[in-house]
Amino acid sequence: MDRKEENSEVIALTQALMRCASVTPKDAGALDVLQKNLEETGFACHRLIFSDEGTPDVENLYARFGTEGPNFCFAGHTDVVPIGDADAWSVDPFNGTIRDGMIYGRGAADMKAAVAAFAIASRRFIKEGNGAFNGSISLLITGDEEGPAINGTRKVLDWMAEKGEKIDHCVVGEPTNPNELGDMVKIGRRGSFTGYLTAIGTEGHVAYPHLADNPVPHLAAMVSALDNLVLDEGTEHFQPSNLEFTTIDVGNPATNVIPKSAHATFNIRFNTHHSLDSLEITVRERLEQVAKERGCHYELECRKNSAPFLTPEGEFSALIVRAIKSRLGRTPELSTTGGTSDARFIKDFCPVAEFGLISQTMHKIDERANVTDVEALTDIYADILKSYFSKDGC
Amino acid sequence: MDRKEENSEVIALTQALMRCASVTPKDAGALDVLQKNLEETGFACHRLIFSDEGTPDVENLYARFGTEGPNFCFAGHTDVVPIGDADAWSVDPFNGTIRDGMIYGRGAADMKAAVAAFAIASRRFIKEGNGAFNGSISLLITGDEEGPAINGTRKVLDWMAEKGEKIDHCVVGEPTNPNELGDMVKIGRRGSFTGYLTAIGTEGHVAYPHLADNPVPHLAAMVSALDNLVLDEGTEHFQPSNLEFTTIDVGNPATNVIPKSAHATFNIRFNTHHSLDSLEITVRERLEQVAKERGCHYELECRKNSAPFLTPEGEFSALIVRAIKSRLGRTPELSTTGGTSDARFIKDFCPVAEFGLISQTMHKIDERANVTDVEALTDIYADILKSYFSKDGC
Ligand SMILES: [Zn+2]
Ligand SMILES: [Zn+2]
Repeated sequence: MDRKEENSEVIALTQALMRCASVTPKDAGALDVLQKNLEETGFACHRLIFSDEGTPDVENLYARFGTEGPNFCFAGHTDVVPIGDADAWSVDPFNGTIRDGMIYGRGAADMKAAVAAFAIASRRFIKEGNGAFNGSISLLITGDEEGPAINGTRKVLDWMAEKGEKIDHCVVGEPTNPNELGDMVKIGRRGSFTGYLTAIGTEGHVAYPHLADNPVPHLAAMVSALDNLVLDEGTEHFQPSNLEFTTIDVGNPATNVIPKSAHATFNIRFNTHHSLDSLEITVRERLEQVAKERGCHYELECRKNSAPFLTPEGEFSALIVRAIKSRLGRTPELSTTGGTSDARFIKDFCPVAEFGLISQTMHKIDERANVTDVEALTDIYADILKSYFSKDGC
Repeated sequence: MDRKEENSEVIALTQALMRCASVTPKDAGALDVLQKNLEETGFACHRLIFSDEGTPDVENLYARFGTEGPNFCFAGHTDVVPIGDADAWSVDPFNGTIRDGMIYGRGAADMKAAVAAFAIASRRFIKEGNGAFNGSISLLITGDEEGPAINGTRKVLDWMAEKGEKIDHCVVGEPTNPNELGDMVKIGRRGSFTGYLTAIGTEGHVAYPHLADNPVPHLAAMVSALDNLVLDEGTEHFQPSNLEFTTIDVGNPATNVIPKSAHATFNIRFNTHHSLDSLEITVRERLEQVAKERGCHYELECRKNSAPFLTPEGEFSALIVRAIKSRLGRTPELSTTGGTSDARFIKDFCPVAEFGLISQTMHKIDERANVTDVEALTDIYADILKSYFSKDGC
């Protein structure tokens, strides 16, 4: 097989995955497609169905080629976000249509093409060496990344720990590049903290305000106070931490009634200057000040979604950068920007970095990826494996 | 008939009115009960049904005894607010049950007993003089005071103006007394202005705040700015004007999304230092400052509900005070406190003052009135008529 033909395999597998309408929590056959491909290569596959009270069952796949260490892991997901307005798409979002060198459809960028690239890069690397290399390759693929992420990667990792399935390094294939393939490798992620704030007043009639205590101005003062908090100035690898209010609600339809309480929700994306617990203390101290100044009452409920993490620059990140540079001639930025990903779970088990396609169209109408980018990504993943398992590996 | 027997008439008529479940916009026969009583006394009755696009038809009654001026008018309503939680009532809310000297049920205080007192006081005054007095007595009774007030008093007054039906002085029978009968006569009302405020931002993801413009802190700043406005210090007859936020809403369920816009509603109860138009200018100027400081955008929609008014102290208010003092031995406060009433429409036609029962239980579970208060109110209304049509009238 020449390169062109080899890489057409990755497009065919991407299309096969995209033809499964695997909107979280549905699998719609996507993992069967992937498993079949991996089994042909010689992977041992474990299908793991997890469930939890109040959440739907989710299918996951852990596949491993080889039994020795080190175990290099590719991680990702086959679930996708909903298509939104179906009429706004210029193509069938679940067909993998190729037009003008682009493959269109839900999951093209985030991240079925990267999952296909994992499988085909592994196959090529294994075939080239006739299966002889010192270590193992594994794929950890979940169907619950875009959903509540309760029955996905986290539980697969717990299951692996129980079975003694150790992984040594991991590349996550989320779309990391803002504009061009090779722009950015993510070596960490900010943490995420959600606060549910309620200002509590006393209900009344607008004509008799002295008999009431209006919670709305109290809440407005708390919103301003938290919005003005300077959490830090950032670190070498992280942006400054940032707090955003996402909603504020009373739901009182009566224009002559002073409401009893008012609610607001905020989310903090934060760097390694803070822990989830220290952040809660910072927020509560500021709210306490406002409440004292105004003589008002509030309640705060915290959801501590994820702590920030950083895979320090070193041989592992250097190996990924080299592979990208040799294929694309560009040196990617090592970044910690953007939202959260399942890397937040994996970082507790081994060093993890993220590199995938261009993020521009993810979660959008007419999501798409360059065919040549998908092929280049496959080459880069194969080069990473080659380098990792050669004497200059980590 | 002795006094006792005469006054039992007012309780019987109150009960008959309360047995009609005339929750706005339903009349449920209430105006028929009243009209029959007035026609027995000799009133000429006009039933007026008004309707408007998007609002239900409402029945109203204008009744007049006599054809000469001056025309003294009693104004009020037979509609009532809903009963709320039916199980919480200790009586049938539409039965007019008397227990321990109190008449219980929806409308007891607000304001079927006062409407009955209008009718019985008029009957007594007319009978005592054998119908001979210089002037007319009229009743303007609506079924749309507790509702949108679109098809009620305002339209009856327009109809009267068209027919040349002039009124010279008016007593509205709303419950004006905070604690005891005779506490308070209302000689004006504050105005009411509702503002619908929207802060407009740019939607985005909480992880990429530099690509978004969060409207929530903008709105919080506007809420604080308007809440801190000192509109005035009050006047001789009015409390300071006051602004209250009644709701604030975004309705964004996604804790990772910065919303596009945020809404708040406020209501201003204001005195004669302001007009509806000057108030809009004051509010817009303050919002403009905040928007300029923050570089943000907003929209404001104004609903100019009613202007403030004052019936200046004089012979008319003195006549009412005298009648109250001679029956109850107490001098009522002349006040402009509380919510709005249909007096806001009547004030454009003639001097208007309000005096009725105790307001404590109005709109509440187990609404009730003292039987003796209802009888005393009837006496006071009759005394007002006597005084008004004697040589010492207005
Ligand atoms: Zn993804
Ligand atoms: Zn009323």
